[in-house]
Amino acid sequence: MATEIKKIGVLTSGGDAPGMNAAVRAVVRASIYYGIDVFGIYKGYDGLINGNMEQLYVRSVSNILSRGGTFLLSARSKEFRTKEGRAKAYENFKANGLDALVVIGGDGSFTGADIFSQEFDVPVIGIPGTIDNDLSGTDFTIGYDTACNTAREAIDKIRDTASSHERLFFVEVMGRDAGFIALNSAIGGGAVAMIVPEHNWSIDALISRLKKGAANQKASNVVIVAEGCHLGSSYDIAEKVKEHIPHYDIRVSVLGHLQRGGSPTTLDRVLASRMGVAAVEGLREGQSKVMVGVINNKISYTPIGEAIKTIKRLDDDEFRIAKILSI
Amino acid sequence: MATEIKKIGVLTSGGDAPGMNAAVRAVVRASIYYGIDVFGIYKGYDGLINGNMEQLYVRSVSNILSRGGTFLLSARSKEFRTKEGRAKAYENFKANGLDALVVIGGDGSFTGADIFSQEFDVPVIGIPGTIDNDLSGTDFTIGYDTACNTAREAIDKIRDTASSHERLFFVEVMGRDAGFIALNSAIGGGAVAMIVPEHNWSIDALISRLKKGAANQKASNVVIVAEGCHLGSSYDIAEKVKEHIPHYDIRVSVLGHLQRGGSPTTLDRVLASRMGVAAVEGLREGQSKVMVGVINNKISYTPIGEAIKTIKRLDDDEFRIAKILSI
Amino acid sequence: MATEIKKIGVLTSGGDAPGMNAAVRAVVRASIYYGIDVFGIYKGYDGLINGNMEQLYVRSVSNILSRGGTFLLSARSKEFRTKEGRAKAYENFKANGLDALVVIGGDGSFTGADIFSQEFDVPVIGIPGTIDNDLSGTDFTIGYDTACNTAREAIDKIRDTASSHERLFFVEVMGRDAGFIALNSAIGGGAVAMIVPEHNWSIDALISRLKKGAANQKASNVVIVAEGCHLGSSYDIAEKVKEHIPHYDIRVSVLGHLQRGGSPTTLDRVLASRMGVAAVEGLREGQSKVMVGVINNKISYTPIGEAIKTIKRLDDDEFRIAKILSI
Amino acid sequence: MATEIKKIGVLTSGGDAPGMNAAVRAVVRASIYYGIDVFGIYKGYDGLINGNMEQLYVRSVSNILSRGGTFLLSARSKEFRTKEGRAKAYENFKANGLDALVVIGGDGSFTGADIFSQEFDVPVIGIPGTIDNDLSGTDFTIGYDTACNTAREAIDKIRDTASSHERLFFVEVMGRDAGFIALNSAIGGGAVAMIVPEHNWSIDALISRLKKGAANQKASNVVIVAEGCHLGSSYDIAEKVKEHIPHYDIRVSVLGHLQRGGSPTTLDRVLASRMGVAAVEGLREGQSKVMVGVINNKISYTPIGEAIKTIKRLDDDEFRIAKILSI
Repeated sequence: MATEIKKIGVLTSGGDAPGMNAAVRAVVRASIYYGIDVFGIYKGYDGLINGNMEQLYVRSVSNILSRGGTFLLSARSKEFRTKEGRAKAYENFKANGLDALVVIGGDGSFTGADIFSQEFDVPVIGIPGTIDNDLSGTDFTIGYDTACNTAREAIDKIRDTASSHERLFFVEVMGRDAGFIALNSAIGGGAVAMIVPEHNWSIDALISRLKKGAANQKASNVVIVAEGCHLGSSYDIAEKVKEHIPHYDIRVSVLGHLQRGGSPTTLDRVLASRMGVAAVEGLREGQSKVMVGVINNKISYTPIGEAIKTIKRLDDDEFRIAKILSI
Repeated sequence: MATEIKKIGVLTSGGDAPGMNAAVRAVVRASIYYGIDVFGIYKGYDGLINGNMEQLYVRSVSNILSRGGTFLLSARSKEFRTKEGRAKAYENFKANGLDALVVIGGDGSFTGADIFSQEFDVPVIGIPGTIDNDLSGTDFTIGYDTACNTAREAIDKIRDTASSHERLFFVEVMGRDAGFIALNSAIGGGAVAMIVPEHNWSIDALISRLKKGAANQKASNVVIVAEGCHLGSSYDIAEKVKEHIPHYDIRVSVLGHLQRGGSPTTLDRVLASRMGVAAVEGLREGQSKVMVGVINNKISYTPIGEAIKTIKRLDDDEFRIAKILSI
Repeated sequence: MATEIKKIGVLTSGGDAPGMNAAVRAVVRASIYYGIDVFGIYKGYDGLINGNMEQLYVRSVSNILSRGGTFLLSARSKEFRTKEGRAKAYENFKANGLDALVVIGGDGSFTGADIFSQEFDVPVIGIPGTIDNDLSGTDFTIGYDTACNTAREAIDKIRDTASSHERLFFVEVMGRDAGFIALNSAIGGGAVAMIVPEHNWSIDALISRLKKGAANQKASNVVIVAEGCHLGSSYDIAEKVKEHIPHYDIRVSVLGHLQRGGSPTTLDRVLASRMGVAAVEGLREGQSKVMVGVINNKISYTPIGEAIKTIKRLDDDEFRIAKILSI
Repeated sequence: MATEIKKIGVLTSGGDAPGMNAAVRAVVRASIYYGIDVFGIYKGYDGLINGNMEQLYVRSVSNILSRGGTFLLSARSKEFRTKEGRAKAYENFKANGLDALVVIGGDGSFTGADIFSQEFDVPVIGIPGTIDNDLSGTDFTIGYDTACNTAREAIDKIRDTASSHERLFFVEVMGRDAGFIALNSAIGGGAVAMIVPEHNWSIDALISRLKKGAANQKASNVVIVAEGCHLGSSYDIAEKVKEHIPHYDIRVSVLGHLQRGGSPTTLDRVLASRMGVAAVEGLREGQSKVMVGVINNKISYTPIGEAIKTIKRLDDDEFRIAKILSI
C-alpha cells in the first residue's frame, strides 16, 4: 500500500544544477517530518549499484540550501543502462531496506528511473533538476532560473566592454536542444538577436537585423547563441557575419560551465523545496513513475514517459517581445 | 477608436521597484515599433501636473535595462488626489497632445489612474511595479523577484554570522500589508519561522517552534518578520522571546531600503519587458482602466478596480512547506 | 627550540569575519605541509577550556575557502578572562599535546592570547581577523575588504531608491571605534559626507555641506555614519538635520550584521592564505606573542602588545579626497 | 608655470577596465574643485584627432561611479601612432584651449602620451587603468581588483560543478604577458595549480602535482591558466594532460571578456578616486610625463618611460603560498 513507505533513497543524476541541494534537503526533512528514514545515495545510479549510500538526518542537510552543485555528487552511469547494472542496483536497494527512490535529474536520468521502476516494481518519483528547462510537466526546472541569472549577469558585464569599444559580441549560452536560457537571457540582457535550436533563423536575417540596428545608431550589440544552434557554433556564426559586415569589430564569448554553478536564486530554492516535499508526499500517497512539477504555481504529477517525450515549446509571445525590443 | 493612439505618456509612481526602468524601456520601444510617439513624464503625477515631460527615443532608453530605480523618478503626489490637481494634469496632458497614459506603480498609483481615466475619458493602462507583490491580476509584480533575492542574499550573509556564534536572529523584511517577501525569503533563506500579517501566529507558537529547534540541536536560527506584522516590530518580538528564553543570544536586523534597489533579476526584466509591450498593445486594442498582468505565464488585462480591491492571498501550500522544512 | 613545534591548535575568537575560514584552511594546510599535526578548537577560548577540539586534515578544510563565517565557531569567552579559566585551558592544551596556538580574531582575543602565552610560556601567534581594520601592524585585517564591499553594495542599492525619490539617506555602517569601513564605503559609494569617530565633525558642518550639494542641484544624497560616531546614532543625526532642513525627505538605514557575512573577496582570501601560512612558519621560526600582518605587501610580525595599543589612524589623504569628490 | 592649468582634457584609451568611470569622475570633480575647466574626449586618441569632445560638469559624472566600462568610450588609435595623427590631435588640443591632458589606460596608451607630450611640450599625466596590473610605478592598476574578483567568482561557480562530478577543470583567465590575475584568482579560488607566463613550469611538473592531489583524495581540481602562457592555450594543456592521465574527466573553460566588465569593487573605486584627484593636483604642481600610482598606500608619480619599461614582477611569496596550499 501507498502509506507503507518507511525508507526512501534519494540521488542526484546527470548534469548538476543549482538547487539540487535544496531539493535533497527538502526530501530529507519531509521524510523525517513524516517519520520516514532517508538514505543519501552518492554519485547517482553508480552509488546505487555500488551500495555507496548512508542515512541522512536533519543536521546532515544544514547549510546546504545556499550551495550550488550537489553534495550527493552526480554522474552519468553507463552501467545503469544495462540490465545487469540495474539488477545490481536493485540488490543494494533491497539490501538497504529501501522502499522507494527519489531521482533528481533530467530526461536521461528519468528514463533510467522509469525502466528501473517497471523492472522491479519499485516506487520511483522524479524531481526535474536541470538548467535547460526542457522537461514538460513543469513550468520551471530546478536550476533554470539561476542559470538565466548567471548568464544574464555575464552578458551585463560583457555589455560594459562592448559599449566601451562599440563592438559586436556573440555570447554562447548553454542549451543543447532547447533555447530557454538563450531566449530569457537575451530579453533580460537586452540582446539585439538570439539564435536558438527551435527557431529557423538564417544568417541573412541576422545580418539584416544587425544592419537595421546600426541604422538606429546602436553603438554596441550583443547576439545570444544557444549552444546547440543549427547555424553552427558561435565562432562559425561570427565568421559568417564578419564576411558580410567586415568593418564590425566582433568578439565571441562562450560562457561555458560557470552557468551550472553558483548559489541558487530564491525562486530555485523555493521551487526545489516545494518539489522535494511533494516527492515525499507523492510517494506516501502511492504515486510512482511520475515526475513532480509546478504548473501554474500548483504541484502536479506527470507520468515520466510523458514528461520526457513531450517537447516543451518556447513561448511564442516572448519571441515576439524580443523582436520588438531589439529595434 | 482604439487604433488612433498616436502619442503615449509614461510615468512611474509610488515606491520605486527594480525593473521599472525595464518597463519604461519596453513601453518606449514598443511605442516606436508601432509608430507611436512616446513621452516620459518625470516624478510621477507631479510631472503631469507641472508639464515636466519630454519625448523619448530608442536611444533614450539604452543602458537602463540593467539599472535599479527609475530614471523617470517617482513620487507620491498629494496634489493629484485633488480634483484641481487632476484638472491641471489633464490640461498638460492635452497641451502635449497625449492620447493615452501608462502608469507604472502600485495600488495607490492605480487608484489615481482609475479616477483620472474616468474623469477625463482618457485611456489609461497600469503596469504593476512594486516589490510587495500585493496586487491581484498578476502572479508577480515587477520588482518582487529582485526583492526576494536581495532579502534572501542578506539572510544568507546574516546566517554566516548567526552560525558562527550560534545566535538567534530576527530579520525584518519589507511588506507592510503583505507577507510575500517574508514567506519566500524565509523558505529560500531556510528560516525556522516567519511572522506575516496574513497569519495569526502567537508569540507562544513561535517560542514553542524555537524550543523544538533547540531540541533538534539547531545551532543557529533565523526568524523572518514582515514589516507590517501584527505582533509588533522585530524588536518587540525579540524582546518577548528573550523574556521566555533568556539564555538565547538574540540579534535583530532590519533590512530596510536596500530591498528596493539593485539591478533587476532576469525574471523581473523579462516580466517588465512583456508587460511594457502588452501595455502599448493593449492601448492600441482599445483597452483602458485595466492593469496588465501575467497570469499562468500569459498576458492578461484586469480592471484596475478589481486588481486593487481583491486581496491577493499567500500560497497556503508554501506555508505548509515552510513549516515542514523548519524541523 | 623553535623548530620543535609538532602540534598546533587553531581557534577563531570574537566577532566573526569573512576570510576566517580561509585563514584556518591555510593554517591547517601549511601545518600538514611542514609535517605538523593541527587541531581545530571550537567556539574560541571556551573550546580550549572545555577540550572541545579535534584533529584536522587536508580534506577537513575542503570547500571552506569560499564560505563566510567560521566553521570552528566563535565566541567571546568570559571564563578565559579569569585566571582559573586560563588554567583549565592550559590543562587541555597540554592534555592534547599541543605545542603552540594560533588565534584568529581581534584585539580582545589578542589580549587573552598575550596573557595566556606569558602565564604558561606557550608559543602563541595572532592572525588579525576583524572587519573593523582597527589593528596596527597590518595594512588590512581579514574581512575588512569584504565588509567594505558588502557595505558599498548596499549603498549602491540604497542610492537607486534615493535617486528615484530625490531623498537624503543616512546609512549606518559598522565600526564602533574606527571609521575605516565608513570612509572607504563613503568614497566607494559616492557619499556626500561621512561621520566617523576619528573626526570631529559638527552637525553644522554637515548641514552646510548638504546645502552646498543642494545648490549644485544634487538630486539625491547619501551620508555614511559610523556606528560609534560621536554625534549619536544615525537616527539622532537625521533628526537634527531634519530640524534645520525640514523640506528634505530623509530616511535612515542601519546596515547591521549583514556586513559580517558573505563569501570573502579575492583580496581577503589571499590575505588570509598568506597570513595562515606565515603564522605556521613564524611558529617554526620561534616567533611568539606576535601578530602576523601584511605591511606594504610584505609579511611582518608585530608584538601583540604593540598591535593592540597603537591606534591605527585613518588615512588623511583619503579624507581630503572624500571632501573634494563630494562637491 | 605649473599653476596656470585652466583647462584639462581627459580620455580613456586601450582596453577598458572597471573603475575607469570612477577615475574620470574624480578628474572632473577635482578639476572643478580647483576652478579648472574639464573636457571629456571620446573614443580615446581618435577623439582628440577628430575633435570629438565636450565640457563636463559635476552632474555629467553623476551615477557613473558604480558602472563598468567607460562612458567616454575607448579605442586603440592607429592614427595617433603616426606623426600626422598626433599633429591633428595637437591642433584640436589647441583649438579647444586645452592646457593639459589626462590619459587613463595601459602601457600602449602611455607610450603615445609620452611621445605627444614631448613632441608638443604639453603637460600629460597617465592614470593606470588596466585589469592586467602589469605597470610598474603602482601596486595596483585600476580594474585589477575587480577582475580578480570576477575571475574568482567564476571559478567558485565552476568548482560547484567540478566537485559534483569530480572533474578536472582548466580555467583560462586574462593576462597576455602577466600572470597577476591568474596567481591571485588561483589562490583565491583554491586552485591546485596555475600556469603563468612568468614561471617556467612544465607539463610534467603539472602532471606530478595533479597525481599528488589524487593521492590525497582530492575529488575535484581546478587549474588556472593565464591567457599568454608559454605552454599553449588551455585546450592544448588539457590535451596533453589527458594523454598522461586518460581516466581524468577534463573540461576547459575560457572566461573571456566578462573579466573586463562589471561594477567596480570598493578598492578599485577608491583607488581610481585617489588617482583621479592626484592627476589633477599633479598637473597643478607642474608634473608631466608621469604616471600617477599608489605605492605602499601613498600617491606617487613615476616617469612614464620608467613605468612602461620596468617589468613588474609577480610576488615570489605568493607563489610559495599557492604551492603550500595546493597539497
